[in-house]
Amino acid sequence: MQQALFPDLYPSRVQDRPSIEVRQDPVVYGSKGNLSQEQLDQYEHDGFLLLADLFSPEEVEAMRGELSRVMKESQGTSRPEIIREWADDEVRSVFAIHASDKVFNRLLRDPRILDTAKQVLGSEVYIHQSRINLKPGFHGKEFYWHSDFETWHVEDGMPRMRALSFSILLDDNLPINGSLMLVPGSHKHYVACVGKTPDQHYKESLRRQQYGVPDEESLTWLVGRYGIQMPAAKAGSVLVFDCNIMHGSNSNITPLWRRNVFAVYNSVENALVPPFSGHEPRPPFVAARKPELVVI
Amino acid sequence: MQQALFPDLYPSRVQDRPSIEVRQDPVVYGSKGNLSQEQLDQYEHDGFLLLADLFSPEEVEAMRGELSRVMKESQGTSRPEIIREWADDEVRSVFAIHASDKVFNRLLRDPRILDTAKQVLGSEVYIHQSRINLKPGFHGKEFYWHSDFETWHVEDGMPRMRALSFSILLDDNLPINGSLMLVPGSHKHYVACVGKTPDQHYKESLRRQQYGVPDEESLTWLVGRYGIQMPAAKAGSVLVFDCNIMHGSNSNITPLWRRNVFAVYNSVENALVPPFSGHEPRPPFVAARKPELVVI
Repeated sequence: MQQALFPDLYPSRVQDRPSIEVRQDPVVYGSKGNLSQEQLDQYEHDGFLLLADLFSPEEVEAMRGELSRVMKESQGTSRPEIIREWADDEVRSVFAIHASDKVFNRLLRDPRILDTAKQVLGSEVYIHQSRINLKPGFHGKEFYWHSDFETWHVEDGMPRMRALSFSILLDDNLPINGSLMLVPGSHKHYVACVGKTPDQHYKESLRRQQYGVPDEESLTWLVGRYGIQMPAAKAGSVLVFDCNIMHGSNSNITPLWRRNVFAVYNSVENALVPPFSGHEPRPPFVAARKPELVVI
Repeated sequence: MQQALFPDLYPSRVQDRPSIEVRQDPVVYGSKGNLSQEQLDQYEHDGFLLLADLFSPEEVEAMRGELSRVMKESQGTSRPEIIREWADDEVRSVFAIHASDKVFNRLLRDPRILDTAKQVLGSEVYIHQSRINLKPGFHGKEFYWHSDFETWHVEDGMPRMRALSFSILLDDNLPINGSLMLVPGSHKHYVACVGKTPDQHYKESLRRQQYGVPDEESLTWLVGRYGIQMPAAKAGSVLVFDCNIMHGSNSNITPLWRRNVFAVYNSVENALVPPFSGHEPRPPFVAARKPELVVI
């Protein structure tokens, strides 16, 4: 039944071998808006765009203050939105900040962000996911290569590639502190991952970590064709990137933290359906199931 | 007796609190040689020097060939010099290559390397340690901040700071593939690490990993004062750095491997004494105990 109602255009984790498929959706859906035609063309071509110094130092300072406040407040509580470091129980991420924090709710509806999301997606939009992201100094962990869309499609039921992410930088992103790396152009391919549970049950834990992880051969092909970019940017800059671009980051042993506010906007015309994995959907604080822009 | 014969100018791992001490030795001991006065001054000031394109592409190709041969040969054997990855048993390092491989023995006695070592250290020199270093693609691990000298002093009994390292790059070192980061100027300080075994015995494994690891406060101070440099360089370039400079590297998730030949030269006037830890010395393939230049 599910297959009939919602055809799976991007099957993943169902094959024995990985494969690289062609993207079946546009990258840019709209035209007029904050971004110039040149910027839109660059976003279409690369799959990402750096908007340098979009927020002023004063605005950054205010966001940092609010972030500190939220982090402090989160220390003593145990809401599921709060993700802690396994090693020292320190708060590392707070999900769905657009739904719980007035300052960040306003930030994520700021026309500099929201209108750009509407422009690129060519429709009204809503926040699929938001969070405070912390890459701490000294022991910030690497984040392996992935396409966000692959997860959102398989685990959340996002049917088409019509979403994009904003990373609002609250610290300078440098070559040395584990900044985001992207494979420009990779958003036009879809790496179908291997996930079928093999027979050897004893390896389950290992396999589990590999769900939705692109294989090394596909990554080598993409990087050989397109290279890797790691945009350096000052705090207050914003990195916009397509839902399907291949990205990841190395670890951060420097004392320089890398904090950002992260938000994903989805087109209201791309509302979630039941997950294509056939499993229960993830909770709404990870993937909002109502296509409505939350105002608090 | 040991203390009386060999006074410990750089005690470490004996205190309850870390401390930053002053270097008591020169950085540059000689004058005339391969390096210009300007290069010597820069080395003295920063604690490292990048010698771009010291080896030709043809020489690099020959070294890569020999490296592949050694790695292949090492797969089936179990000499202690061969260090394997715990996860997949793949060879990751081969120690003491100057003592076992004619090509690398010749390379590490090449006047472009050896004469520079003699120039900086102002005396005859010998190879304290050599190895092939592999930072593989996709899952190359980070290497936390450390001063080599701290380890060589405490664990090997190197009395003074009169040694230097050469990293001969066999692959391009880029901002994205976990290149070496150095704190320029940090070589003029000595971070005494905490190591005294505390009372809580149950934490032993955790503590063990922290032997010889500089504390975050000292690192923050050093980086705040001097910053961090991550020299990008092409294959065939050589990075020379002081035995006491604070350095480390982030992980490498890119497909781009980072292989190098690494060799440490010590002054014959700085021959090893019994380890200042009071423990047995490490094996000779990690730290040569005879101050003689090996020719094979």
